Amino acid sequence: MGKDTDARLAEVMSSLVRHLHDFAKETQLTQAEWEYGIGFLTRTGQICSAERQEFILLSDVLGMSMLVDAINNRRPPGATENTVFGPFHVDDAPIRQMGDNITLDGKGESCLFEGRVLALDGKPIEGACVDVWSDNADGFYDVQQPGIQPKWNNRGRFFTGADGRYSFRGIKPVSYPIPDDGPVGQMLGHLGRHPYRPAHMHYLVTAPGYQKLVTHTFVGGDEYLSSDAVFGVKNTLIAPYEHVTNGDTLWRSPFDFVLVPI
Amino acid sequence: MGKDTDARLAEVMSSLVRHLHDFAKETQLTQAEWEYGIGFLTRTGQICSAERQEFILLSDVLGMSMLVDAINNRRPPGATENTVFGPFHVDDAPIRQMGDNITLDGKGESCLFEGRVLALDGKPIEGACVDVWSDNADGFYDVQQPGIQPKWNNRGRFFTGADGRYSFRGIKPVSYPIPDDGPVGQMLGHLGRHPYRPAHMHYLVTAPGYQKLVTHTFVGGDEYLSSDAVFGVKNTLIAPYEHVTNGDTLWRSPFDFVLVPI
Repeated sequence: MGKDTDARLAEVMSSLVRHLHDFAKETQLTQAEWEYGIGFLTRTGQICSAERQEFILLSDVLGMSMLVDAINNRRPPGATENTVFGPFHVDDAPIRQMGDNITLDGKGESCLFEGRVLALDGKPIEGACVDVWSDNADGFYDVQQPGIQPKWNNRGRFFTGADGRYSFRGIKPVSYPIPDDGPVGQMLGHLGRHPYRPAHMHYLVTAPGYQKLVTHTFVGGDEYLSSDAVFGVKNTLIAPYEHVTNGDTLWRSPFDFVLVPI
Repeated sequence: MGKDTDARLAEVMSSLVRHLHDFAKETQLTQAEWEYGIGFLTRTGQICSAERQEFILLSDVLGMSMLVDAINNRRPPGATENTVFGPFHVDDAPIRQMGDNITLDGKGESCLFEGRVLALDGKPIEGACVDVWSDNADGFYDVQQPGIQPKWNNRGRFFTGADGRYSFRGIKPVSYPIPDDGPVGQMLGHLGRHPYRPAHMHYLVTAPGYQKLVTHTFVGGDEYLSSDAVFGVKNTLIAPYEHVTNGDTLWRSPFDFVLVPI
């Protein structure tokens, strides 16, 4: 590398090349395997489009995305843990009132989500934005089915009051496969891995003076909790789902979010 | 991975994932750097076409291609060393007579290439095919300039007789840049690296009962010998280029190739 190379770039590239070479030496990579790798990376790049990012998917299923997330979002004990953002968030979802129903297609088992947004000392945070999104009962996000699902189905933003409480009705989410009709799906097949993510509700929780929290809560008991295709599960994020009988609502999932000051 | 995963695939993928994660941990890779990497890989895949393989180029400039070549072509002392094949070989070049001139465009400084194809014990190999190719005096291979250069310019195949000798006239090759108008070229720029390969003549030497030899001879004294953009230079492959005065021929480059039995 040249003398004027940016110091951080030099550090990253040195490490990358060393690990790449160590990988080849350790495995005694054959010419045919190298060629297969070149072809795989090429196919992965060529299936990418404005609607599809196969390299992020590759990073996800190799545990790289979660690792980078963990490196960059270290939190003290007691704070809610991060997990992957995923590709399905949409900015500027409708602002709703506490208790509103975000499920617009009438499908699925209705569930009440409620809890508090708290500081590390247990005090409620006022004015926190709880931005939520999930798949519908068929396992698809609204943006995957434009014209089929109502716009903003299973999405909404809720702003906390002085008590820090949030509550909304949605559905008990269902597990779904990541897109597995491309090179990454083929790879999962060769590795004997399924493409499923365990059922989860997405949260983006923000509040002035606090670090942004990107996380999910997972449905306890889901069959894919220990084999999430993208390694997104953390035990502290598995939420209770209690059976209730309250009108049409069948479930209640309580969960408190604890934010860290900036 | 599933229980039925191919053992070799499992070995390669385990090593790959471990090194990938170690790279991220060692560098404490940031979210922005990860995003840049995803974007870089995507651009690299998307510029690939039937005529261009940017991932091979990436492998080349990171020293990966030469490493894989070295791992898969270990040779005993005394045998000629391998180097990278490169993208410019064409099968079935014209078979020519010893001493023929392969330079059809009349450009460049004429050079006599001659030597022997030998076994490890020094005995000449009869019936060896010496398949040669180089760029022209402007630094381009014929396949890079169809319609500009004559077809088969600076290419040919020569079959040895009982004495194992080969000889042909071509030009003293010139250094040239690898394609640097894509993501890999941008990367080289950021790293303060030039895109040049030192001048070289390509050889593919085959003979019944012997291992295939893919190599170059390099022009001694070339300014890029110690900084080949693809790390292809081995000291034993630097050939002498002697000034001569023999008609139009200005140079003579003698080199013997030593093959290893299968």
